[in-house]
Amino acid sequence: MRILVPFEATRPKTRLDGVLDTDERVAFAQAMLRDVLRACRDAGHDPEVVATAEVDVSAPVAVDDRPLSEAVNARLAATDDPLGIVVADLALLTPAAVDRLVAAAADADLAIAPGRGGGTNGLVVTHPDFRVDFHGVSFRDHLDAAEAVGADVTVVDSMRLSTDVDEPADLVEVLLHGEGEAAAWLRAAGFELDPVDGRVGINRRE
Amino acid sequence: MRILVPFEATRPKTRLDGVLDTDERVAFAQAMLRDVLRACRDAGHDPEVVATAEVDVSAPVAVDDRPLSEAVNARLAATDDPLGIVVADLALLTPAAVDRLVAAAADADLAIAPGRGGGTNGLVVTHPDFRVDFHGVSFRDHLDAAEAVGADVTVVDSMRLSTDVDEPADLVEVLLHGEGEAAAWLRAAGFELDPVDGRVGINRRE
Repeated sequence: MRILVPFEATRPKTRLDGVLDTDERVAFAQAMLRDVLRACRDAGHDPEVVATAEVDVSAPVAVDDRPLSEAVNARLAATDDPLGIVVADLALLTPAAVDRLVAAAADADLAIAPGRGGGTNGLVVTHPDFRVDFHGVSFRDHLDAAEAVGADVTVVDSMRLSTDVDEPADLVEVLLHGEGEAAAWLRAAGFELDPVDGRVGINRRE
Repeated sequence: MRILVPFEATRPKTRLDGVLDTDERVAFAQAMLRDVLRACRDAGHDPEVVATAEVDVSAPVAVDDRPLSEAVNARLAATDDPLGIVVADLALLTPAAVDRLVAAAADADLAIAPGRGGGTNGLVVTHPDFRVDFHGVSFRDHLDAAEAVGADVTVVDSMRLSTDVDEPADLVEVLLHGEGEAAAWLRAAGFELDPVDGRVGINRRE
């Protein structure tokens, strides 16, 4: 299946600015993107980056200067085939998680994987009239949009798909469960788990 | 299957003290506990509360004044049957998620579901020598403990199982995805989603 991976190439991961400088955020975001592309490919699919600017990865890249939801919707409108969409910051993504998302679409017009905090991290769209809008509480909005066009929905219950990496607390999950370049990048940059009371935090070695 | 649900009855959910007072934390924690018990029962299992003090729920309650890991381990040592353990604050738990945890143990000595931040939220133990320790980075520790006794492990990838409710940010997930008493309790207490930049927050009506 063709899977779009929208990527904000110009100013990625701004909410990590407390722990990573601008160049580091670009490098880390690209490492996560490569992990996502690899998971899709290893699950037997054809990932395709839709980016705001050129990025050097081993997958086709379409630079599209429209807002990313609009760029995705143009591609949804242009095909009759099922189309997958996964966000680029799923540093925990595995081929098995991609498989579950794709399999969930076998008997639904829309398979959707929520992200933490109300976002949408993965979709497989088979209904011809469904369109995305990644703004705001997009998971709820996508359920409403599916209902509006009469698309039946399967929700995919996956921690790996739900864990988009936006904030420093999310780096803990990458260190704990990541198996790819992003986790390796963090470790090489000096990040390590910092067990404290309650949940585990992160620490960066000087 | 018998499923233990350890419950801190005396001072539950202290990290919610910024948004809920003491009585509210008790009421909300018990609502979550009832949701967990119902999900287990609706999946066809026999939940059993192991609590630090009496609590009024429609399931057997064993009051055990030992630390909860120790109380669980005493029960693991006393049985040869598979034993499930799920934490009491999984306000998003569904019978389907319980099913996945139990099914994962069919071909492994240990099925384990990680929680956000390095915790362990669900286990099904079939290996006779495995013991739990919920302290610290318990997910990693449990993997190590399994390896030490030669138990093979299946990790269950579930957002619902990974979402234990400890901190105000977790309430967002309950409002978005909860289907039981805990979500209803929060709404009745005036909590609602508060879409802001980035992830969604919560707001409490005066």
